[in-house]
Amino acid sequence: MTTVPLPSAPPGLSPEELDRFHLGLAIEQARIGWEEGGVPIGAALVSGGRVLAVGRNRRVQMGSPIRHGETDCIDNAGRQPASVYRSSVLYTTLSPCFMCAGTALLYEIPRIVIGENRTFQASEELLRSHGVELTVLDDAECVELMRRMVSERPEIWNEDIGEEA
Amino acid sequence: MTTVPLPSAPPGLSPEELDRFHLGLAIEQARIGWEEGGVPIGAALVSGGRVLAVGRNRRVQMGSPIRHGETDCIDNAGRQPASVYRSSVLYTTLSPCFMCAGTALLYEIPRIVIGENRTFQASEELLRSHGVELTVLDDAECVELMRRMVSERPEIWNEDIGEEA
Repeated sequence: MTTVPLPSAPPGLSPEELDRFHLGLAIEQARIGWEEGGVPIGAALVSGGRVLAVGRNRRVQMGSPIRHGETDCIDNAGRQPASVYRSSVLYTTLSPCFMCAGTALLYEIPRIVIGENRTFQASEELLRSHGVELTVLDDAECVELMRRMVSERPEIWNEDIGEEA
Repeated sequence: MTTVPLPSAPPGLSPEELDRFHLGLAIEQARIGWEEGGVPIGAALVSGGRVLAVGRNRRVQMGSPIRHGETDCIDNAGRQPASVYRSSVLYTTLSPCFMCAGTALLYEIPRIVIGENRTFQASEELLRSHGVELTVLDDAECVELMRRMVSERPEIWNEDIGEEA
């Protein structure tokens, strides 16, 4: 669970600036995960402009195959009514795998903002076919975090996406 | 995590009897979940004939929106190499939601044995389209557990599938 108060966006930001601000929270989580020795992928869940939770991939830190950035974030937000998910935006530093995409579909999260999809992309067609709005920001820091991951910890990365190490 | 040793099937069972035996482990988890005040859905992950883990929906018990029977089970099995998942069978008392189906797709679990799909069905077409073999046993006890759930704890059930309570 998150132990520090969650920041909120300063007033007066444009929609694009809001997306960048919230993606920044996800990137901060990714950086923390990298420093912890893990997979540098982070997420933030925002509903009605309020940051409900942030999270990060904790495969290594918790020995968990189900704690990707997005699922960890959604777990950190706790039990929420359907209406909260349905008015939320999920920010993630990397294009979602099928598990995380399926979680977004289960809770009918209508929009996902993706830091980058150059390193990995599996579920975007599925998400779009269910009406999920995707915004890909092609963020340089997200790309760089994953470049280091794939280069320096390839076995863990392959394990994380269900590939042979 | 499972705290008791995991049972293995007695020798000499036919394939159908093996499926019933392993589904029985999932049903036992579902019963435990019901007695705990939770959602009575359980799962077991079996690879090469060996039971790797069992698990159950723990939304209520752990306040978690990501711990369905299948994801809890896969988490309980810990970090596994891709080859283990790819030679495994996932047993679940109820047809998987998109989150659990997506988890199976991420790890390329080739076969899922489903206790029942009368109460809920969302992902079977998706799973089949990715080549996952599905076996639906239409088990009376699985149906009865969910009948009680939907009747006696409808708010929690709706929350569990992302519907308005």
